[in-house]
Amino acid sequence: MPELRKDPILGRWIIISTERGKRPTDFIVETNHTKGGFCPLCTGNENTTPPEVLAYGRTSSAPNTPGWTLRVVPNKYPALVIEGNLDKAGEGLYDKMNGIGAHEVLIDTPSHNETFTHLPPDRMIQVFWAFRDRLVDLARDPRFRYVMVFKNYGRAAGASLEHSHSQLVALPILPRMIVSELEGTLSYYKYKERCVFCDIIRQEISQELRVVCQNDRFISITPWAPRSPFEMWVLPKKHASSYISMDNEDFQALAAIFSETMRRLDACIPNVPYNFVLHGAPLRSQPLEHFHWHFEIMPKLTTMAGFEWGSGFYINPTPPEEAARFLKNAKV
Amino acid sequence: MPELRKDPILGRWIIISTERGKRPTDFIVETNHTKGGFCPLCTGNENTTPPEVLAYGRTSSAPNTPGWTLRVVPNKYPALVIEGNLDKAGEGLYDKMNGIGAHEVLIDTPSHNETFTHLPPDRMIQVFWAFRDRLVDLARDPRFRYVMVFKNYGRAAGASLEHSHSQLVALPILPRMIVSELEGTLSYYKYKERCVFCDIIRQEISQELRVVCQNDRFISITPWAPRSPFEMWVLPKKHASSYISMDNEDFQALAAIFSETMRRLDACIPNVPYNFVLHGAPLRSQPLEHFHWHFEIMPKLTTMAGFEWGSGFYINPTPPEEAARFLKNAKV
Repeated sequence: MPELRKDPILGRWIIISTERGKRPTDFIVETNHTKGGFCPLCTGNENTTPPEVLAYGRTSSAPNTPGWTLRVVPNKYPALVIEGNLDKAGEGLYDKMNGIGAHEVLIDTPSHNETFTHLPPDRMIQVFWAFRDRLVDLARDPRFRYVMVFKNYGRAAGASLEHSHSQLVALPILPRMIVSELEGTLSYYKYKERCVFCDIIRQEISQELRVVCQNDRFISITPWAPRSPFEMWVLPKKHASSYISMDNEDFQALAAIFSETMRRLDACIPNVPYNFVLHGAPLRSQPLEHFHWHFEIMPKLTTMAGFEWGSGFYINPTPPEEAARFLKNAKV
Repeated sequence: MPELRKDPILGRWIIISTERGKRPTDFIVETNHTKGGFCPLCTGNENTTPPEVLAYGRTSSAPNTPGWTLRVVPNKYPALVIEGNLDKAGEGLYDKMNGIGAHEVLIDTPSHNETFTHLPPDRMIQVFWAFRDRLVDLARDPRFRYVMVFKNYGRAAGASLEHSHSQLVALPILPRMIVSELEGTLSYYKYKERCVFCDIIRQEISQELRVVCQNDRFISITPWAPRSPFEMWVLPKKHASSYISMDNEDFQALAAIFSETMRRLDACIPNVPYNFVLHGAPLRSQPLEHFHWHFEIMPKLTTMAGFEWGSGFYINPTPPEEAARFLKNAKV
């Protein structure tokens, strides 16, 4: 059973995966990875993953056989496990609980070489619908307080499989980053009685310095204080704190803007490794006036060094205004 | 002039280095680094760095010539610049100021192939004295509020030069990580009237589960909730909030424990890339009952992926008790 442990100074939680407990020699061997070979996410290999919890695109085929266009399965090597109780406990001054949670893999495509960035529009929409379907389902488990939805693309961005996929991790606690965002946005709201993200969107539209692209419902920007060159945020223009409140046309508009954003990035820096992460309100939260759901897209272009680790202070060699200009002018 | 920008939601500061503004093609070219060639940090090449601000070991040689054992020079490509005013300003809802600061390189050794881990004891002591000398000097500038002291070793840990060196960055603002540590330790102190780090040291000595090594004055542990496999903290046993309060015997004891800690790590995972960072009280701070200076050493063994970026929540495949056992049993 993995363990969740809390840092007593910062309140930061860590997942200790005791089951895959790595010895020093494991790290030495790991420095040389090879790619290729067998892929458990490819169509035809459905029986090598745990049984699917969701599939789109089937007309008549049975579960866990070919015929799907998108498929969600439990992670075969989960960071957290679904069975058990939280059993919160102390150990002297330290706090811990069982590593209870869900860890799912969302396979974007049956084909090994199709990338998320180049999915056709109707298939891109499926990915965003699948996020919602899984969020709604996981929110039914009262042990879970938050679901992290994210994608790692490329080995430098932490992807251990080449085949295009996203991940969902349901957590029994609120991640520190989300707590900080909730606190930061609430403190702005108390002072201004407005959502800070709504104010950001208004300023970005009027300044036009950091807009990558937009449509009626969504906007894609390079943020004012980006941690990484070419960092981008995708936000709904209409205030909403939870991802699951979107309607059908919202999904179409989101897929369109996300697709354009990723294609612009790919045109600037072909095949760049990246992460994206959904930031939304906690599960089962009432609608929040001060919080605004959005995606953060982080290309992996710089190395996190001692300075960043120690300070939480990032050095970014590309001003977001310059990045936005390159992205806006890219040929897509 | 670089710019300091504040994220309006999280209060996180970013340094935008406008002068080295990188274009998309710069990142494509950068993926293949070569090593070797000319090294500006080697003895004999003193005239290729900015003039030294500190040197140890000279008996009769002139500044910026050979004859030193340790040398501190301004960074030729500084993230922040020393000349100018802060000029704090707003831009709509955003905050910024000029990127004023100091950025120095501490060259541990005149020899290209000598590593920090394998410095002889008297030379290791010099490094820790040099940190103090520079901290004391930089604290005289009233524009600076904090000095980050850190080392990046190995390209994966962000080192752009092979030759062993540390860095100092003097900042006009408190880094977010230090603010969080000050807040976290103060909130513990208000509740318990004790320093949380002092309590940690007591518990670690009594539990003996996570102690790597210790002497009369210092202890080296793997922390309860480490972000990375083999993360280690080095702490003074006697409460002190500021690094500069150490006496001569403290420096000897610190160098001894640090040297042993690094050699144990190197014995477990030879030549592993790592970062270490000094965490101390803000410059010119009064002694703080609730804060305890220490070093955090972070081997670079896992990839920071979307999950970690988005959540501030780390997955660690090696329990600290296991790491401590390997480190304690390593032959050094």
